[in-house]
Amino acid sequence: MSWVWTQIKAEAHRDADSEPALASYLYSTVLSHPSLDRSLSFHLANKLCSSTLLSTLLYDLFLRSFSTHPTVLSAAVADLLAARHRDPACVSFSHCLLNYKGFLAVQAHRVAHVLWTQSRRPLALALHSRIADVFSVDIHPAARIGKGILLDHATGVVVGETAVIGNNVSILHHVTLGGTGKMGGDRHQKIGDGVLIGAGATILGNIRIGEGAKIGAGSVVLIDVPPRTTTVGNPARLVGGKEKPSRHEDVPGESMDHTSFISEWSDYII
Amino acid sequence: MSWVWTQIKAEAHRDADSEPALASYLYSTVLSHPSLDRSLSFHLANKLCSSTLLSTLLYDLFLRSFSTHPTVLSAAVADLLAARHRDPACVSFSHCLLNYKGFLAVQAHRVAHVLWTQSRRPLALALHSRIADVFSVDIHPAARIGKGILLDHATGVVVGETAVIGNNVSILHHVTLGGTGKMGGDRHQKIGDGVLIGAGATILGNIRIGEGAKIGAGSVVLIDVPPRTTTVGNPARLVGGKEKPSRHEDVPGESMDHTSFISEWSDYII
Amino acid sequence: MSWVWTQIKAEAHRDADSEPALASYLYSTVLSHPSLDRSLSFHLANKLCSSTLLSTLLYDLFLRSFSTHPTVLSAAVADLLAARHRDPACVSFSHCLLNYKGFLAVQAHRVAHVLWTQSRRPLALALHSRIADVFSVDIHPAARIGKGILLDHATGVVVGETAVIGNNVSILHHVTLGGTGKMGGDRHQKIGDGVLIGAGATILGNIRIGEGAKIGAGSVVLIDVPPRTTTVGNPARLVGGKEKPSRHEDVPGESMDHTSFISEWSDYII
Amino acid sequence: MSWVWTQIKAEAHRDADSEPALASYLYSTVLSHPSLDRSLSFHLANKLCSSTLLSTLLYDLFLRSFSTHPTVLSAAVADLLAARHRDPACVSFSHCLLNYKGFLAVQAHRVAHVLWTQSRRPLALALHSRIADVFSVDIHPAARIGKGILLDHATGVVVGETAVIGNNVSILHHVTLGGTGKMGGDRHQKIGDGVLIGAGATILGNIRIGEGAKIGAGSVVLIDVPPRTTTVGNPARLVGGKEKPSRHEDVPGESMDHTSFISEWSDYII
Amino acid sequence: MSWVWTQIKAEAHRDADSEPALASYLYSTVLSHPSLDRSLSFHLANKLCSSTLLSTLLYDLFLRSFSTHPTVLSAAVADLLAARHRDPACVSFSHCLLNYKGFLAVQAHRVAHVLWTQSRRPLALALHSRIADVFSVDIHPAARIGKGILLDHATGVVVGETAVIGNNVSILHHVTLGGTGKMGGDRHQKIGDGVLIGAGATILGNIRIGEGAKIGAGSVVLIDVPPRTTTVGNPARLVGGKEKPSRHEDVPGESMDHTSFISEWSDYII
Amino acid sequence: MSWVWTQIKAEAHRDADSEPALASYLYSTVLSHPSLDRSLSFHLANKLCSSTLLSTLLYDLFLRSFSTHPTVLSAAVADLLAARHRDPACVSFSHCLLNYKGFLAVQAHRVAHVLWTQSRRPLALALHSRIADVFSVDIHPAARIGKGILLDHATGVVVGETAVIGNNVSILHHVTLGGTGKMGGDRHQKIGDGVLIGAGATILGNIRIGEGAKIGAGSVVLIDVPPRTTTVGNPARLVGGKEKPSRHEDVPGESMDHTSFISEWSDYII
Repeated sequence: MSWVWTQIKAEAHRDADSEPALASYLYSTVLSHPSLDRSLSFHLANKLCSSTLLSTLLYDLFLRSFSTHPTVLSAAVADLLAARHRDPACVSFSHCLLNYKGFLAVQAHRVAHVLWTQSRRPLALALHSRIADVFSVDIHPAARIGKGILLDHATGVVVGETAVIGNNVSILHHVTLGGTGKMGGDRHQKIGDGVLIGAGATILGNIRIGEGAKIGAGSVVLIDVPPRTTTVGNPARLVGGKEKPSRHEDVPGESMDHTSFISEWSDYII
Repeated sequence: MSWVWTQIKAEAHRDADSEPALASYLYSTVLSHPSLDRSLSFHLANKLCSSTLLSTLLYDLFLRSFSTHPTVLSAAVADLLAARHRDPACVSFSHCLLNYKGFLAVQAHRVAHVLWTQSRRPLALALHSRIADVFSVDIHPAARIGKGILLDHATGVVVGETAVIGNNVSILHHVTLGGTGKMGGDRHQKIGDGVLIGAGATILGNIRIGEGAKIGAGSVVLIDVPPRTTTVGNPARLVGGKEKPSRHEDVPGESMDHTSFISEWSDYII
Repeated sequence: MSWVWTQIKAEAHRDADSEPALASYLYSTVLSHPSLDRSLSFHLANKLCSSTLLSTLLYDLFLRSFSTHPTVLSAAVADLLAARHRDPACVSFSHCLLNYKGFLAVQAHRVAHVLWTQSRRPLALALHSRIADVFSVDIHPAARIGKGILLDHATGVVVGETAVIGNNVSILHHVTLGGTGKMGGDRHQKIGDGVLIGAGATILGNIRIGEGAKIGAGSVVLIDVPPRTTTVGNPARLVGGKEKPSRHEDVPGESMDHTSFISEWSDYII
Repeated sequence: MSWVWTQIKAEAHRDADSEPALASYLYSTVLSHPSLDRSLSFHLANKLCSSTLLSTLLYDLFLRSFSTHPTVLSAAVADLLAARHRDPACVSFSHCLLNYKGFLAVQAHRVAHVLWTQSRRPLALALHSRIADVFSVDIHPAARIGKGILLDHATGVVVGETAVIGNNVSILHHVTLGGTGKMGGDRHQKIGDGVLIGAGATILGNIRIGEGAKIGAGSVVLIDVPPRTTTVGNPARLVGGKEKPSRHEDVPGESMDHTSFISEWSDYII
Repeated sequence: MSWVWTQIKAEAHRDADSEPALASYLYSTVLSHPSLDRSLSFHLANKLCSSTLLSTLLYDLFLRSFSTHPTVLSAAVADLLAARHRDPACVSFSHCLLNYKGFLAVQAHRVAHVLWTQSRRPLALALHSRIADVFSVDIHPAARIGKGILLDHATGVVVGETAVIGNNVSILHHVTLGGTGKMGGDRHQKIGDGVLIGAGATILGNIRIGEGAKIGAGSVVLIDVPPRTTTVGNPARLVGGKEKPSRHEDVPGESMDHTSFISEWSDYII
Repeated sequence: MSWVWTQIKAEAHRDADSEPALASYLYSTVLSHPSLDRSLSFHLANKLCSSTLLSTLLYDLFLRSFSTHPTVLSAAVADLLAARHRDPACVSFSHCLLNYKGFLAVQAHRVAHVLWTQSRRPLALALHSRIADVFSVDIHPAARIGKGILLDHATGVVVGETAVIGNNVSILHHVTLGGTGKMGGDRHQKIGDGVLIGAGATILGNIRIGEGAKIGAGSVVLIDVPPRTTTVGNPARLVGGKEKPSRHEDVPGESMDHTSFISEWSDYII
């Protein structure tokens, strides 16, 4: 973790030196802070505050959550590594820390989730609301999310109350992990490790997306998806067919290979 | 209406007592106000204000609209009841009032619509723009919307100028009720009472969605949909077939049953 | 250009006279400024500023970019004309200038792109991040965009790093011009002149969308689309068939005809 | 009252026309409002608000106080007339309404005083604190103040809890109406009608300043001052001597004649 | 200390219950905080922040200073007791904590002084500047100030770089403890314990104000003042005469007796 | 001028390096700017803005005034040199530029004065009002002020409409240059070059303070003061007597010698 923080500071120093117009921003958000948790708390507090939820209150809240729940911070580091590793547009750790709304939304969600598990639900929901307003990312505070998560672009992501997301999952924008109706209870997805969910995919109901599965962009998925298979289309079909779906070797949540199925899929294209 | 307001105050009192960090927020938004219209005006004004549209100006505008158009406020109460009744994640009225961007966007839209019908169009459009920026909900001020509306999650909803939405309709996020081109005139949908429109559905043109119809998540609908039928897919097909579509008994806009068609739909799934 | 600015001032004067509640807003954003570049710089700076990126800094940045890169401003004028011409809901130039998040996001992107080409990448990315937060429009600063662009509704538009968009293109909301994985390099679309991309369409990979093509709402497009043809569905098919696709005469990016293919498409509808 | 408001609007219109850079300010503070009470409430709320006392809350508070206590507003009108009549630097009513910190401090004090008399003391004191911070004018909310008051320049004025100020009094900056120690009870001045208190004068204790008296700049006054006499110096002496002080005919609170005593006073000047 | 904090919370609870309009303010500033140092840090940070010195930065700074320098906090408690004890207008501890600009300025000064002694002079001076802007209280960060200090009304107090103020001193508004010219070095006052300095008094140069002395309002003091004597006038004279000045028994800094010398002084009054 | 700006940047660099908590502030106010006029415009705009007078508007206003009136900027440089030279507490040019409210108030006044002479009086008065609110310095925009001015501490300074202040004048806090009544016309002081006016001095009427004169702290001056003489007391007397006042050789506005007259004055002290 300290290695990543050292990197972030070095990057911010380099950028502040080369771009005076940004130096004030970089000092206030990164360079004036002694540690990642303070930098992240400061940045989230200033992003998420409003005239009725002051930045100082949120700053306090984030700082305390990070210090009492160290796994929240280590998950943030895993997410930084994931973004840097998987997203070719992610040019530096500091770029992700400061500018990725998906990254910031997930970190703020983790704090909301801590509050939820402490039965501080009204506060968790207020924080949830601010994340949804500011980042257009709507993750219910009860949802459980692993580490090494990449929400790429992130706008419009919706994750329901009883969803569970594994580790090393990559989710593009406009993705919905939604429920099935007005009944309560466990009504959302279980997303396995290493899954990749393409842009605009909609997954509804308490179904299981097997580890390493790939959900094609725009898919509407209503039934379980076996591990390391690919679904495409609306309604979603398994590439290779329901009976003998094609299985891939790689972990798409990490390889981010969105389109390898095109050749196979072309069979469906008129 | 007064019953709902009494409930909201009781909930806010309970939450303020149990969560001191949120008490300031709850007092400023709810507990310091003598009535729902003041609370809602205050909250919307602080959410939608900007450096060039001050909160005091918006507060005035909302207050006056609520007082001169009492149906706007009674529709808000119907929406609160709808959210509480239909959305299992909605734990209280105050949660909806404070945190649901769909609820807040609809209430602000209703005021923009009042302004539109009063030929105060530049102001209506400026308010529309703020709603679109802050909530990522883009409802043209001319659109007519019934009561008992639930915009669930709400991010990315777009409703065009000549759209008409009935009562007790539920609309998920990323739903588009769009036009057909650059011609003006009546070019948007007529959505009947009790309709449910799933996440990411796109409905284009001046077509009629019959009452109690269900539009499946991700559908792209370009033709009329008969009452109490279900459409799925892109392009959208009627479940049960064009000739003899299946008809359901329930009102999906109220039951929120998104996925009952899965078994039937599985016929289309390869 | 000066004709458009004269129009904008006349419209704003008319609106300020008829609506005192909006006059302050219109004077601060339009009527107090001697030229379009100052008005636009002021408006963008106040929209995009945050507690860590001050409005005065952004104002300076926009002003200087407009003055040193006059094509950025002339492209803005072309976009104003495009919105006014193509969008029946666009009632005036000033309405577009002040209220269209798509218009504002594109203008701010053009400045971010100038910074990017000047190797001021950290600043370009910080500006990109603000545009994505405020407008929910996520255009990578490296993406190249022509003039006469209409981003209608705009929420949720994502345009990747190596995308190139021609002139007179119209793009609806929720449209993705995305990449193919974690490899860098040229991995995004080349969108020809006059293309229309419908709401919710997802286009992935370094493919070519021929000039005057029409991408139907909700399409998921993974392969090249010939000029003046139409794609629909998920996966996207060419209307008229892969072998002999129908070709249209009009330029859909300008005519905005979203739905003319319905009759043809109905063949696919069960 | 309506005549003054009509004048203010006419002045603001004239200034907005001649100075576009100020038009936004004039519309938001004056021209968009239908009445003086709304304009004044808006202006005070935006001046006195802080991150923990929101402008909308203060706006509500001022509006209600003005509507339930009409004498507060009529006193404001009397103060506007006083400033316009007595202060040669006061070029217009709107100038006083918008820019005179003494005028604004007195109006806000009157509302704080209303709250005090309603036993809403914590709110009165919070408002008092904001007035002291923003205007550097510190009038205890319990102090009773007449009408036709001019606080000229106003910075540093201090008025204690049990002070009573008559009508048509003019008070310059840095004036103290202070107490005598740590005992409570009635321990401050009774200032008669038409008194003029010069810059930097300090008056201590429950003494009586007779009507039409003039307190010279820099005086330190510890004993009663007879009507229509003048005090000068530190400690203050009566011009003309204790036994047969000179008496003037004019009302110095209205004539604002600060220096007519110079010739007499020169006797004391070495 | 914990007793005072318990009192403050009880007062704030009582006031929040009786005045809903103030409850939000009281929760954010007092009731949501677990300890006095957090409440005070929050309040000062929100009072002193600006667009270029963010509240979160100041909050951090105050919190750390209070935790590493516990005497700063204990001095704050002594000041609270002093205000409550000496000022009849101080109705509660929470009133002083929240509303007394003199109290707040002194606490912020103590933190600036800590920074100064740590050779963090630019930060100390920036904080000093904010205190001077916001509270109109200008205490050089190098000045040394005891405990049990009351700055009553406080506007316009100026304390120079090498001034030293003892314990249990009370200073009214507009008081200057100033230097003698452009030479550096030790050029300011040494104010003994228990001194009372009346409104508008000006004390210049490195002179000694003996313990328990009383400086009359408006005095201009240029020479040493013996303990327990009183000075009045401009230029200041010792009451009772230079040779055998009257000596009082009480400690005027605590008794706040401003005016007992009137009878004696009347000898000088013509 | 460029030498001073180079110094300021060097100082700010040094301070930013030694104090990360202040670096953001120093970059935004100084280090990101290419020239003194931009830095000063930025800093003043952010200090003086309000919710109804936006920082971007003020920034524009200051920038244009500095560029069209270069003497305004050269006077600012002279003031920086004066503060650095005369005030032992002024540790650096950047300290003065950023933190001295007297310096900032004078620079903003100069711009208000430019507006006044251009007959843009409403804007000049609005700016005047902001200066008075923010810095508690109240200089009428019509007042003419020389260069090399030091307003030390500055709180409470009041300068009337027809006052004229020469070059190299030093004025302490709480100083009043006031009028004589409600008559208009030329009614304020003419202050010669090199004058020093001590804290709390009050000068009333159209009198002449000869060059190099010294006005003692707390003086109340109502009659002309000959060059290079000293006045003390209330009412003010000439040190050395009216007939043959003592004359000093130095220029007290530059030497800042406040107290050399003590020995002579002691004759008056009882």
